[in-house]
Amino acid sequence: MIINPNEHSHQDNYKLLIGSIVPRPIAFVSTRSAQGQNNLAPFSFFTAITSNPPTICFAPTRRGREGTKKDTLRNIEETGEFVVNIVTEDIAIQMNQTATDFPPEIDEFGYSGLTPAASQIVKPPRVLESPINMECKLYKVVSVGPEAAGGGALVIGEVVLFHVADPLFDNFRIDFDLLKPVGRLAGTEYTTLGRRFALERKPYIEK
Amino acid sequence: MIINPNEHSHQDNYKLLIGSIVPRPIAFVSTRSAQGQNNLAPFSFFTAITSNPPTICFAPTRRGREGTKKDTLRNIEETGEFVVNIVTEDIAIQMNQTATDFPPEIDEFGYSGLTPAASQIVKPPRVLESPINMECKLYKVVSVGPEAAGGGALVIGEVVLFHVADPLFDNFRIDFDLLKPVGRLAGTEYTTLGRRFALERKPYIEK
Repeated sequence: MIINPNEHSHQDNYKLLIGSIVPRPIAFVSTRSAQGQNNLAPFSFFTAITSNPPTICFAPTRRGREGTKKDTLRNIEETGEFVVNIVTEDIAIQMNQTATDFPPEIDEFGYSGLTPAASQIVKPPRVLESPINMECKLYKVVSVGPEAAGGGALVIGEVVLFHVADPLFDNFRIDFDLLKPVGRLAGTEYTTLGRRFALERKPYIEK
Repeated sequence: MIINPNEHSHQDNYKLLIGSIVPRPIAFVSTRSAQGQNNLAPFSFFTAITSNPPTICFAPTRRGREGTKKDTLRNIEETGEFVVNIVTEDIAIQMNQTATDFPPEIDEFGYSGLTPAASQIVKPPRVLESPINMECKLYKVVSVGPEAAGGGALVIGEVVLFHVADPLFDNFRIDFDLLKPVGRLAGTEYTTLGRRFALERKPYIEK
């Protein structure tokens, strides 16, 4: 079937996007407001861009009802700093507790029981219980769509420091059996890694 | 442990990024050059940005050795059009066959045995064997890093038409059991979906 997105609501188009682009990694993003208030929230529109310099991006969509900016985006625009924490099976429940709309004065670390640990270069704390943290500085925010409900922004940031739990690290390779990352699907659904398989990349051979 | 990316090669930083940001969805991107040459290549730095309008992005990193632009990026800059095809377990092997460096005159459809099917709005064909195709028009390209090996670009595009295989579709929700999407890990590794679990999002309650 063919679906013309112009003929449907952005909520329906959202369902199609989150159902089709799967499984998605989760950026569990900690920020701190200019006034010193910590914030923590998950975003599954998240990927890397390049390694030179190491650069990642994630999209904090505007809030569903009011279309206001999320605290995460506001804090990053104010301070230019954030930390991306990787979500593992062990902290999935706590991550989900931070995934709703909170008043800006609420510290989702305290609410979820996760521990803020000092970062080295940036002010926002990292999540102690997450085995990989990336301290990031804002490169730029790219606005997409209207400044209203469903409108989006892409936060592009440079990783200025990696924290990796020692057992996971083997010459810059990460051990997935130990990491146990969680992938995002749609609705209320998440997934663990499944059956892993290798596909060798072969050079082009003229036929 | 702490890793300062400035003290390591971009290849080592690349390993950290692809090992940490997992599992990644795969954009299997078809393009057509201004001269009419089809191209097909997979990119796992891929996510959505917003649904209003439906907007996705992917990052075609420059080629490892020479640092030249990939055909996909060149074609999109020339024509402003591309199709994102979703990668399923059934076409993972063919997808991998297109994931190496080819001379620009090679049509990866023919090389991999996948079937080009006409798109409705854009000129690049979609992959017939993929059950979800998104016809896209370029919104903008954001350059990141140097114009050399490892440097990157983020292609941001608006989905102007969705094609979804009928059995997958249930009121804009996608059936993952039928879709069988493939996630990208690191090195030669890929993953199927694993154990799926639901986490209900609960509203904030003052404590």
